[in-house]
Amino acid sequence: MLLGPDYQNLGETQFCLWAPSRKQVTIHIIFPQEKKIEMKRHKKQGYWFLSVEDIYPGYQYYYQLDSKEEFPDPASHFQPQGVHGPSQVIDHAFLWEDQNWSGVSLKEMIIYELHVGTFTPEGNFNAIIPRLDELVDIGINTIELMPVAQFPGKRNWGYDGVYPFAVQNSYGTPDSLKKLINTCHRRGMAVILDVVYNHLGPEGNYLSKFGPYFSQKYQSNWGQGINFDGPFSDEVRNYFIQNALYWLEKYHFDGLRLDAIHGIFDMSATHFLADLASAVRKFSQKKKRKYVMIAESDLNDNKIIKPRSQGGYQLDAQWSDDFHHSLHTLLTGEKSGYYQDFGNIQDLAKAIKEGFVYSGQYSSFRKKSHGNSSKFIPGEQLIVYAQNHDQVGNRMLGERLTNLVSLAALKLSAAMTILSPYVPLLFMGEEYGEESPFLYFIDHGDQNLVQAVREGRKEKFAQFQWQQDHPEPQDEKTFINSKINWQKREQGHHVVLLDFYRLLLQLRKRYSLLQCPDRKQIKVWNSEKTRVLAQQRTGQDCQFLLLSNFHFRDSQYNCKQSGTFSCKSGWHLVIDSCQEKWLGNGSLAPNIFCVKNKITLKPYQFVLYQQKGVNNKNGKK
Amino acid sequence: MLLGPDYQNLGETQFCLWAPSRKQVTIHIIFPQEKKIEMKRHKKQGYWFLSVEDIYPGYQYYYQLDSKEEFPDPASHFQPQGVHGPSQVIDHAFLWEDQNWSGVSLKEMIIYELHVGTFTPEGNFNAIIPRLDELVDIGINTIELMPVAQFPGKRNWGYDGVYPFAVQNSYGTPDSLKKLINTCHRRGMAVILDVVYNHLGPEGNYLSKFGPYFSQKYQSNWGQGINFDGPFSDEVRNYFIQNALYWLEKYHFDGLRLDAIHGIFDMSATHFLADLASAVRKFSQKKKRKYVMIAESDLNDNKIIKPRSQGGYQLDAQWSDDFHHSLHTLLTGEKSGYYQDFGNIQDLAKAIKEGFVYSGQYSSFRKKSHGNSSKFIPGEQLIVYAQNHDQVGNRMLGERLTNLVSLAALKLSAAMTILSPYVPLLFMGEEYGEESPFLYFIDHGDQNLVQAVREGRKEKFAQFQWQQDHPEPQDEKTFINSKINWQKREQGHHVVLLDFYRLLLQLRKRYSLLQCPDRKQIKVWNSEKTRVLAQQRTGQDCQFLLLSNFHFRDSQYNCKQSGTFSCKSGWHLVIDSCQEKWLGNGSLAPNIFCVKNKITLKPYQFVLYQQKGVNNKNGKK
Repeated sequence: MLLGPDYQNLGETQFCLWAPSRKQVTIHIIFPQEKKIEMKRHKKQGYWFLSVEDIYPGYQYYYQLDSKEEFPDPASHFQPQGVHGPSQVIDHAFLWEDQNWSGVSLKEMIIYELHVGTFTPEGNFNAIIPRLDELVDIGINTIELMPVAQFPGKRNWGYDGVYPFAVQNSYGTPDSLKKLINTCHRRGMAVILDVVYNHLGPEGNYLSKFGPYFSQKYQSNWGQGINFDGPFSDEVRNYFIQNALYWLEKYHFDGLRLDAIHGIFDMSATHFLADLASAVRKFSQKKKRKYVMIAESDLNDNKIIKPRSQGGYQLDAQWSDDFHHSLHTLLTGEKSGYYQDFGNIQDLAKAIKEGFVYSGQYSSFRKKSHGNSSKFIPGEQLIVYAQNHDQVGNRMLGERLTNLVSLAALKLSAAMTILSPYVPLLFMGEEYGEESPFLYFIDHGDQNLVQAVREGRKEKFAQFQWQQDHPEPQDEKTFINSKINWQKREQGHHVVLLDFYRLLLQLRKRYSLLQCPDRKQIKVWNSEKTRVLAQQRTGQDCQFLLLSNFHFRDSQYNCKQSGTFSCKSGWHLVIDSCQEKWLGNGSLAPNIFCVKNKITLKPYQFVLYQQKGVNNKNGKK
Repeated sequence: MLLGPDYQNLGETQFCLWAPSRKQVTIHIIFPQEKKIEMKRHKKQGYWFLSVEDIYPGYQYYYQLDSKEEFPDPASHFQPQGVHGPSQVIDHAFLWEDQNWSGVSLKEMIIYELHVGTFTPEGNFNAIIPRLDELVDIGINTIELMPVAQFPGKRNWGYDGVYPFAVQNSYGTPDSLKKLINTCHRRGMAVILDVVYNHLGPEGNYLSKFGPYFSQKYQSNWGQGINFDGPFSDEVRNYFIQNALYWLEKYHFDGLRLDAIHGIFDMSATHFLADLASAVRKFSQKKKRKYVMIAESDLNDNKIIKPRSQGGYQLDAQWSDDFHHSLHTLLTGEKSGYYQDFGNIQDLAKAIKEGFVYSGQYSSFRKKSHGNSSKFIPGEQLIVYAQNHDQVGNRMLGERLTNLVSLAALKLSAAMTILSPYVPLLFMGEEYGEESPFLYFIDHGDQNLVQAVREGRKEKFAQFQWQQDHPEPQDEKTFINSKINWQKREQGHHVVLLDFYRLLLQLRKRYSLLQCPDRKQIKVWNSEKTRVLAQQRTGQDCQFLLLSNFHFRDSQYNCKQSGTFSCKSGWHLVIDSCQEKWLGNGSLAPNIFCVKNKITLKPYQFVLYQQKGVNNKNGKK
């Protein structure tokens, strides 16, 4: 039984609503002409159902409850007038042209995280399309859209969404989102959607009028936890599982990114996420296509992706903040907040070898032991990034890494991420060194809420000396200033950085040792003193040596000391970030070396060597 | 580093306290003479430590915090004047005589749940000792003490305890508890302690003065959840893990029963219970003795006892309420509250074959799907009972099964429980059909709390027409009325019932097929119409047939129809609850039968047959 209005062609629409404690439910059509139709209790407890003739796409309605108040549909497919307005019947028929689309495997994915509102001046789905070719050109094959579910106002990161089934009206229509995805698939790109199943936004959230969607037991960072394990939780779980399948089925998304699953509280014998993953696997089998389920998790818990037989939830992958934090602290020297737990070369070394850096040891930031081991988790199940919307946007001034470190460090950062043994994710604009900030912006209608958000930010950044001229979340300027400047791709050093990303992505694609290799094939050597990290990767017919200098000065890499490799036939230089063509100051790394003992690395230099004599055929995937 | 006061002989006592946000901590000795000694911060964050000379057992003290308020020790070993009084230094030296004690395996256990306050007129540890022989005599080999941690006042079930390390002062002294356990071990009995790690009582709970023991995130039925996963949770976990080991080490308990683990909220990558079980396993290895960890769980989640390799917590066993509810509803016909989910013969059949009756299906009472399967869980990992303190005591009038059903039904109940493929637990007095209620009683000092408890009870039992003359929890009479009457064991039908229990326990002990057999060896046949449940158990050289009639009328068991067994050499009657020696009205079950098609069973009759020709040697374990 599909929730929401299900348009059946020929003017028949089936409405289905869950409202277990209501005595009467009326569909109140308000456009194009007013009409009231009383719903019937479904035999399945708590559901109301009605198949209505002469209801066409474009018709707008509210649900009236117990002959009194009326509210939009909790499973609305579109809110043309925003979160407080009526819901609209949608015809999901669409001329899809992706019948032959076979998807992108996790291992191959190069993910590009994109916020629809700030990616283009227009800030909508249509405006993304002309830019796809340029993304494909540098090697991006997967777009991850930040949440597009209807949120209050016109500007929001998306995490204040209150209609999980409705496409944000300021971004376009259901059709324009489908057109974007259809075009992506034709260009060979997968599209992942960020969905929020741990909370709902504070404005326009009428869910409690319909049923016990929220729990009294749990408090998350974003308010009341969702009722995944109390009375009536079967139906709440169904609402979110249907939501996941809806995006995959109606919009042809290739997967979902589940926001902050550490805010999903569930003591049921089968965890909601295990049920969700299982439902998507079944759907996958039916459609004969793989859909990926990626969690954002702050738990460092391998249970999230372990198979069910080992007590896991069996999601496909999760984000790895530890990789980010290890890299970020080495590049910026930052020590505040959660960065206090990182800052040593060995953290990054562990992130490369194992995944989670915190695998059970004490975290000063958290004031408790944290995590378990991800050593056994295949590389393609962890997503890594040097930047993402959170890591940039949750800074008081929303600075990108571009604003914090030198070009040399940016190139090193790119190499570490793209050639990591995990799945890389880039944050829109990162590839050419975008400099505009990504700030926190909202457009709430409720002034008390606007003030509350402002106070919240003030408190959060108290330690950073909150300034009166700090960007105001509600101010449209804050949103506009966060837009990226696409034309920069063709200007000055941005062009070179873009080329550098392109080359790295080509290399990753070309060599299996640079694309989620088995981490047993990687030997890592690192020194806190020299701040050099070396990786030797050994395949059947191919070897790579990756040298990274995290020192702001020249630093020496001593081949003998490291003992990470023996060199039979000489190493051949593949990429050297300090060469002048990459706007470097020149490099001391030789083009070929055999029994050389030491290499002097320039500040933030990255060098990739390949074993001499290996031909591409052998080295290729 | 041991929490609490650790007396080292020769007048040296090491004090260790966790109080992370305090600036100054002073030990304030108040007996035998006043003295203040300032503690030192330990290098381990948040702990305070001091080794003090001239502090002897019997000395009493408070901790003074930041030169202001003073409170008893959160890890006090004894509170001679109750929850608000000073803590006392204890010498744990004791002349143990159980060096050769090897314990009782879960499979062999016959558990006897006992409330110290109401088991004897004296209501203390010492008074239990003279009764042990009589328990041993009927076959009890394990005593489970309801919580003995210090609670407010003199009367309490024990779940309002606020000093998890201190022995309840009205029950006796640490030494008298040790003497009880020492005596049990000498009599061949194990002793299990009920411990409460999901909440602390409402009165005399000063833990928050010392550190963040409680969580803001979780609300349990009993107030704020304990902080098992927030900042500083390592130390909170340590407090409870030390507590578990303390009871095993200092008091020689054989295991712990963990109260209501569904009230333990923990999102850490390693769950508190997994850590706890692992700590006890390590301790077990060190002591070369097996300690059992038994959970009370309302989750029907096999994760609680599954091994770590399968994502479980690896506790040793858990209580199975579903068995109780299946049996109770068949015997009483009750349908209110959680009993609405039960009442069919097939529920009990599933409880026997699988364990959890709710293994994923919808529960009307819970208004949600509930549980997963315990099919693969060995029988010795589930504890079953026809009565326990909760099932009796949480009724408005605290009626035992004895007060609700006939003697015939009591005998059937005993047989179902004791000959179940699980570990049986009896509630004190059950074995001779005690008739006094087990009521809810408290002895709080705080009158507001007394009133709150009263209101809570009133609300809870609103549906049962709360009566003004309902037993008042705070009234001493309520407590006194809950005491059992040991002398009844020698009176009237009580003697016969006691003999019946004795016989069942002997049979269980004698035949492995009657003591946690592999449930694959059991075929169950049941009919809702006849309300007969038949079990055929087939071992290598032995077979049993257990027939139970849950009808209040005569009911027929049709051997052919059931198809549960083929009978080669005839069945031999072993036990028949309707015989006159068991005060039955006479039975129609033959002593021997071969190809008989039907047996007429009297109301609530239980009959056990053994395959003819099987000798005891073969049938024996």
